Amino acid sequence: MEMDSVIDGFLKFDSEYTEITYNNPYGPNPADYLSNVSHFQVIESTLREGEQFANAFFSTDTKIAIAKALDDFGVDYIELTSPVASEQSRRDCEAICKLGLKAKILTHIRCHMDDARVAVETGVDGVDVVIGTSQFLREYSHGKDMTHITQSALEVIEYVKSHGIEIRFSSEDSFRSELTDLLSIYRAVDKVGVNRVGIADTVGCANPRQVYELVRTLKGVVSCDIECHFHNDTGCAIANAYTALEGGAKLIDVSVLGIGERNGITPLGGLMARMIAADRDYVLSKYKLHKLRDIETLVAESVRVNIPFNNPVTGFCAFTHKAGVHAKSILAPPSEYEILSPSDFGLTRYIHFANRLTGWNAIKSRVDQLNLDLSDEQCQEVTMKIKKLGDVRPLNIDDVDSIIKDFHANVTTPVVRPVGINSDTAPRVPHNLERLDGNGVVARKLLGRRR
Amino acid sequence: MEMDSVIDGFLKFDSEYTEITYNNPYGPNPADYLSNVSHFQVIESTLREGEQFANAFFSTDTKIAIAKALDDFGVDYIELTSPVASEQSRRDCEAICKLGLKAKILTHIRCHMDDARVAVETGVDGVDVVIGTSQFLREYSHGKDMTHITQSALEVIEYVKSHGIEIRFSSEDSFRSELTDLLSIYRAVDKVGVNRVGIADTVGCANPRQVYELVRTLKGVVSCDIECHFHNDTGCAIANAYTALEGGAKLIDVSVLGIGERNGITPLGGLMARMIAADRDYVLSKYKLHKLRDIETLVAESVRVNIPFNNPVTGFCAFTHKAGVHAKSILAPPSEYEILSPSDFGLTRYIHFANRLTGWNAIKSRVDQLNLDLSDEQCQEVTMKIKKLGDVRPLNIDDVDSIIKDFHANVTTPVVRPVGINSDTAPRVPHNLERLDGNGVVARKLLGRRR
Ligand SMILES: [Zn+2]
Ligand SMILES: [Zn+2]
Repeated sequence: MEMDSVIDGFLKFDSEYTEITYNNPYGPNPADYLSNVSHFQVIESTLREGEQFANAFFSTDTKIAIAKALDDFGVDYIELTSPVASEQSRRDCEAICKLGLKAKILTHIRCHMDDARVAVETGVDGVDVVIGTSQFLREYSHGKDMTHITQSALEVIEYVKSHGIEIRFSSEDSFRSELTDLLSIYRAVDKVGVNRVGIADTVGCANPRQVYELVRTLKGVVSCDIECHFHNDTGCAIANAYTALEGGAKLIDVSVLGIGERNGITPLGGLMARMIAADRDYVLSKYKLHKLRDIETLVAESVRVNIPFNNPVTGFCAFTHKAGVHAKSILAPPSEYEILSPSDFGLTRYIHFANRLTGWNAIKSRVDQLNLDLSDEQCQEVTMKIKKLGDVRPLNIDDVDSIIKDFHANVTTPVVRPVGINSDTAPRVPHNLERLDGNGVVARKLLGRRR
Repeated sequence: MEMDSVIDGFLKFDSEYTEITYNNPYGPNPADYLSNVSHFQVIESTLREGEQFANAFFSTDTKIAIAKALDDFGVDYIELTSPVASEQSRRDCEAICKLGLKAKILTHIRCHMDDARVAVETGVDGVDVVIGTSQFLREYSHGKDMTHITQSALEVIEYVKSHGIEIRFSSEDSFRSELTDLLSIYRAVDKVGVNRVGIADTVGCANPRQVYELVRTLKGVVSCDIECHFHNDTGCAIANAYTALEGGAKLIDVSVLGIGERNGITPLGGLMARMIAADRDYVLSKYKLHKLRDIETLVAESVRVNIPFNNPVTGFCAFTHKAGVHAKSILAPPSEYEILSPSDFGLTRYIHFANRLTGWNAIKSRVDQLNLDLSDEQCQEVTMKIKKLGDVRPLNIDDVDSIIKDFHANVTTPVVRPVGINSDTAPRVPHNLERLDGNGVVARKLLGRRR
C-alpha cells in the first residue's frame, strides 16, 4: 500500500516533471525581452583574474594544462594576464595562442598604445581593454580626465581593430562611476565598432537589481555586446551575473572556484549551477559539466587550497545526505528536494562520512566524491586507518581526505603516472615549485607526504 | 612632487569620501519604498537548519556555547531544532530558553497540534510553523490538500497564540507552489494574527528578481512581517536575501558559515558583508561584527570543517593582498579597492603567506588572521618549521595552518585553557565526541595532533 503509492507517485512525478520543466519557475522571465539567460557566453579568467589571487603562481605548464581543460569544458573565451606584466607572461600568452584551442584567447591590457602594440603581436584573438572611470580611480590610479580617457580609448580601439582582432572596452569600478561619464564613453567606443563593452564591479559591492538597471540602461545606449565582471566581496557575484544576463548582458567573466583579487569573482561552477537551473538544455548543449570537478581539483591543487566544503555542486556537502534526515524524500523522487541533478555534473548522491562513521561504505562514498578509484577491499582498509586515527583525535573533513588521498597515492603510484612526471627521473621531493602542474601537485604532494 | 600629489589626493579623498558615503551607490534604492534594507532582522538558525548539515552533531554544551555567542553578537532570534525531533532536542531547547538571552528563542515545528503542544511547553518565545505547499510536497511529503493545510494551520496558530508567544507560518518550497494557493493561505493566517509569514526557497534555485516580485506581491496581501529562507544551491542565497529586504521582507534566516541541508543557506557573515555595504551605520549599531571570526571558528570546529579560503570577510584571501599587486593603491586610500573595511570586523589587511615565503612577517600576518597570539620570536620559530617542511613538499594553506596551530597549542597549552577543559583532569585524547565544544575541539584536536 505504502509502496504502491510511492510507485504511483513516481509515475505521476514523471509526467509532471515534463510539465514543470516546461514551466520552469527558475527559468528566464518572459518579461525580460532582452534577456540572454538562454544565450550567455563565458569569459574564463582563471589565467588573468585568477593569477591575481593571493596564492596563485602559475607555471607555464600549469597555465597550459588549465587552458586545455577549460577549452575542453567548452568555455567561449580564455582571458590571459597582460603580456606587458612580465617577459614570462608574454611568452606564456604566445604559447597558449599556439595551442590551437577552440576557445578564443584574450589578453587584458591597460588603455595604452604601448600595451596594445605588445598585445597584438602575441597572436591573441582579442584584447580586453580596461580603464578606471570612477572618481576614485580617476584621482588615484592614473589621474586622467574623461576627455583624455575617451581619446586614448579610441586610439587603442582603432589600432587593435586594424589588426583584425576583437576588442572589448571596459570601465573599472563601474558602479561608482558617474553614469553620464560612463554612458558617453561607452557610446563613443560603440560608435567606432568595439566588439563588447564591459561593466565591472571591481570592489564587489554591487547588488542584483542595481546591476539589472545599469545593464538595461547601457543596453539602450550601445549596440554591441555587454560583458560583466563581478567581484564577490559581498557574496553576490553569481546572482549579479544572473541579473546582468536578464538585463541583456551576454558575457560573464568567471574563474575556477572564483579565484581572483581578494575573495574573487563569479565562479565557473557556481554560475553553471545557477544557469542549469534556468536553462538546462542550453547549458548541457554547450558545456561539459561532468569535467567541472576535475577542473576545480586541478586549479585548487595549483593554488594550494581545498575546495570549500560548501562549494556549489562539488563541495563535500552539496549532494551529501545526512542519514535519517529526509527518509521520506529518499522514497519520493530526489528532485523533490534537489533541482540540480548530480548526474548532470557526473556526480552522484553521497552519504556523510566523517565523525560517527557509518562504516566503510560511507568512506567509499567520499572516495567516489573525490573521484578516486579504490576497490571495496581498499575502502575497507582505509576505513580501518581512519577509524584508528579517529580513536586518537577528532577528525575533520580535511583530515579524512588526507588519509584517503595518501592511501590512494600509495596504492596507485606504481601504476598511474601523471603526464610529465617520470617516476624514475623526476625528483620525488620537488624543490622547484615553478615546474608544478595541477596533476603533478597531487601526485608529488602525496609522494612527499608518504615520508 | 609625487608625494605631494599623493598627500593632496588623500585630503581630497577625505572630503569626497563623506559625499560618497552620503550618496552610497550600494545603499537602499529610494524607489523601494517598502524596503527593509535599513531595518532588517536576523533569525539565526545554526541550531536548527545548521543541525541538518551533514557533518553536524551538536552536544548540549556546544549548543549553549553557540547560542551564547550568537546572542552576544546581537542576532534578533535564535531558532532551535524541533523539540519533538528527539528527547535530547527537547531538553536542549528548554536549557537554552533558561539562559536568559536577549535574543528571542524560537523552535521550528511541523504544522501539527502534537508538535505545537510540546513546543509551547519548552519555554520558547515563539514557534516557527512550516508546511510544504508546493505540488511536489503536497504529493510526496504529506499528501494533504490546501483546505486541510489551511485548517490545521489555523488550529495550530490559535493554540500557540493562546499561550502568548510569537508564531510564524511559513510555506516550504514556496517558489514551486501555486501562487494563488500560497497567497490565499498567507492571507488566512495573517487574518488570525500570525506574527510573521515566511517564504522558503527550499531547493535553493530562486533568483533575486523573482524573489523581489514574490515578496512585493505578498506584501500587498498580508499586514504582518515577512521572513525569508534561502538555500544556496545556486550561490544566490545572500543576494536573494538582499532583494527580499528591498521588496519589503523584514527577517532573514541565516546560519554561521551558512551550514544546513546540502550546501546550506544564507551565511551570517556573508549577509553582514552585504548589509554593511548598504547601511553601515545600522549594521554597526546592532551587531558586534568583531565577534564574527570567533563565532565562525567556534562553529567550524564544532562541525569539523575549515573556513573556506574564499569566505566573505573571514576567508584567508578576503583581506589578503598579494605582494606587488596594487602597489599604487597602497599609497592611495585602501577603500579605493575595498568598500568593506576589515577594521569593522576587528580584522586587518594581511599579506599572503604561503608558497614563496616572504619571511616570518608574512607568517605573522597569518597568525594574526587566525586570531592566535604569538610573539615575534615565536613567529620566527614557527616560520623555520614551515620552511623546513616546505623544502620537503609543497604546502597548501591548510598545511601551514596546521603547523601554526600545532605550534600555538604547544606553546600556549600550559597557560590558556578553554572553559570546561581542565588540563589536569580532562583526557588529553578525547574519545567522547559528545562532550566537545567549539574551543574544546581546537585545544584537544591540537593536543591529539602533537602525538
Ligand atoms: Zn577583477
Ligand atoms: Zn532550510
